[in-house]
Amino acid sequence: MRRQSVAATALWIVGSALKTAAANPIQSAVAATLCRRTPKTKLMTERIFNFSAGPAVLPIPVLEEARAHLLALPGVGMSVIEISHRSKTFDEIIQGAETGLRDLLSIPKNYAVLFLQGGASLQFTMVPMNFLSLDENADYILTGSWGKKAIKEAQKCGEVNLGADMSDGGFTRVPTQEELQLGDDARYVHITSNETIEGVQWKSEPDTGDVPLFSDSSSDILSRPIPIEKYGLIYAGAQKNMGPSGVTLVIIREDLLPHIPKGKPTMLDYRTHVEHKSLYNTPNTWGIYIINLVCKWLKEKGGLEAMQQENEAKAKLIYDAIDATDFYRGHADPDSRSIMNVTFHLPSEDLEKKFASEATAAGMDGLKGHRSVGGIRASIYNAFPREGCEALVEFMKEFEKKNG
Amino acid sequence: MRRQSVAATALWIVGSALKTAAANPIQSAVAATLCRRTPKTKLMTERIFNFSAGPAVLPIPVLEEARAHLLALPGVGMSVIEISHRSKTFDEIIQGAETGLRDLLSIPKNYAVLFLQGGASLQFTMVPMNFLSLDENADYILTGSWGKKAIKEAQKCGEVNLGADMSDGGFTRVPTQEELQLGDDARYVHITSNETIEGVQWKSEPDTGDVPLFSDSSSDILSRPIPIEKYGLIYAGAQKNMGPSGVTLVIIREDLLPHIPKGKPTMLDYRTHVEHKSLYNTPNTWGIYIINLVCKWLKEKGGLEAMQQENEAKAKLIYDAIDATDFYRGHADPDSRSIMNVTFHLPSEDLEKKFASEATAAGMDGLKGHRSVGGIRASIYNAFPREGCEALVEFMKEFEKKNG
Repeated sequence: MRRQSVAATALWIVGSALKTAAANPIQSAVAATLCRRTPKTKLMTERIFNFSAGPAVLPIPVLEEARAHLLALPGVGMSVIEISHRSKTFDEIIQGAETGLRDLLSIPKNYAVLFLQGGASLQFTMVPMNFLSLDENADYILTGSWGKKAIKEAQKCGEVNLGADMSDGGFTRVPTQEELQLGDDARYVHITSNETIEGVQWKSEPDTGDVPLFSDSSSDILSRPIPIEKYGLIYAGAQKNMGPSGVTLVIIREDLLPHIPKGKPTMLDYRTHVEHKSLYNTPNTWGIYIINLVCKWLKEKGGLEAMQQENEAKAKLIYDAIDATDFYRGHADPDSRSIMNVTFHLPSEDLEKKFASEATAAGMDGLKGHRSVGGIRASIYNAFPREGCEALVEFMKEFEKKNG
Repeated sequence: MRRQSVAATALWIVGSALKTAAANPIQSAVAATLCRRTPKTKLMTERIFNFSAGPAVLPIPVLEEARAHLLALPGVGMSVIEISHRSKTFDEIIQGAETGLRDLLSIPKNYAVLFLQGGASLQFTMVPMNFLSLDENADYILTGSWGKKAIKEAQKCGEVNLGADMSDGGFTRVPTQEELQLGDDARYVHITSNETIEGVQWKSEPDTGDVPLFSDSSSDILSRPIPIEKYGLIYAGAQKNMGPSGVTLVIIREDLLPHIPKGKPTMLDYRTHVEHKSLYNTPNTWGIYIINLVCKWLKEKGGLEAMQQENEAKAKLIYDAIDATDFYRGHADPDSRSIMNVTFHLPSEDLEKKFASEATAAGMDGLKGHRSVGGIRASIYNAFPREGCEALVEFMKEFEKKNG
């Protein structure tokens, strides 16, 4: 990781805003805000603020390092996407990614760290294929759209109990411990730590007693420290906080492995990937390479405690702007608000459309809410710069003045 | 695709060979050969000849274009690995990749083209999960190591008949039509079009009558024109001739889809991906982007007829060197020799080790045969330059002189 590259993260200038600043006061304000913050740095007019829910913004120093070595890794003579997954060079890369994640998340030694493919969607199937048989049951706590999909796949394998169903009111919060109805003989309890679509996040883990806690942590992994030892299994698509799409991180407590029935398809049996250290077949080598670089960047930024502070500060900027007026209406209850995906509504669908479209024109892309819930969604993952949140807040104020 | 980049493919100079040319006559010869061939071009001393079986060498113009836009796609303001898979930009990319493949392979309209994850190894499971039930049978024609793995997974789903078993003599050829023992009620006939490890390739498709032909074409897809209409299903990991690892191409005749039983896991049901055009969940966006660029490069090179000519010429260089002496012994029978993976032996294991290690020192990497069969393997996919084959032949001659 090149040190000088880190400074470049302060550099996310809204190109289109600069180009048309004179013609538009909102864009002008955005551009001015940004320019004030980066007076000595070269303008990167090509980049915009990317509020996309995933694949999502990545750290500029990571992209710069990948670019610098894309034709040939130093001393190797091949691109990282050309080297064998059995080579010494790739071994160092995958070890680096695993060590990086173990350090950042304080993953205990009795957990395996896997780099698989197929996204969380394949894990929705793989988890029950490995841990839920027809005569068994598992508790799923339903707090949003992704949890629903996980349940649908689990029901093809065994019995699913709803440990809580928060669908009333369109998924606005996680349940309290008292609201949970967990079975005594459940094989596991499944949560979605952060519902990307609704912007609803668990602030701490539910108490599941002796029953292993499983989590789809796709959209908040690495955004804050978590007590891994409270979990039996965590899975997460890489394309929000970790890297490009096409890699799935799985963290699994090894004492669960002997419970997997024999005879499962080799690629869908967690033991295969634990035994072969994610190299049973060719993994997504590029994805793992980028994850390794992202971990280095996170360490340089101060690790997950620092990241949590920054993420909370970034989210607070937007939530404060929402709470300051009746024009904007937050979707999630304050106690369950996500620090990764800020979801809110405007007084009408027409205004929401106008908001998203004018924001795009002002260099802020990806703000349209998921088609299933509508509204506005600002996804502000680790690599999303605070300046982008400030620019959005400015834009929100100006938009309300004109349309409120 | 930038035109001037294409010339750079002639530019694969063995860096280490040049640096130490004076000290080593073989390296000197290699370097001289290459320099003679590229007198006017700038030396790319960082790159070496990559004979790896996969992930494997990619076209330099493709790498250059990806590098040029890695921080921001022109007019988009985000890296290709940061854009939403639901965006208009990515839609153009995935459409481009599909159109590119359809054009190059002349894929008829009644076939779907899918970009999945998990490699051929997941297809070993997915194919029988979709098309083979417990009370049904399929014919598998066994011509090498990958076919064995495919059979192992199919046996977990239904009955497997060996349409031919070519394991005698360590898989040196494909069967003749007369040797095939195909069942009348087989759901499908499965072949491995090119066995990467043994270097054994089908030169034309077996006649399977009305039974659909399924093929694992991971290591020779796009190396030559193939009559798609003879197949029911083709699958191929991208990491040899198409792009980076982590994407799997599936070409499937659509009339097969209604035969898939209902209730399969959503991600493992081909219908899901056909209906959602490979966007049911987040695909490997980077991988698909590179495939799109590779298709453009292939079109510029003259398409698959031109590619086949070049591949045959490249392979002939090495096979001729093998046949010219008793020192080298080809593994595959001449009629079944692969134009992608050239496999051969030396008089002893010690000499093979020495050969691979001295070749690496001379800037030719990845020549060690697969651990399961030993020997030497030169993988010379589409993007592998002819100069690399010439350099290897020079090296083989010198090596025999010294050690023969």
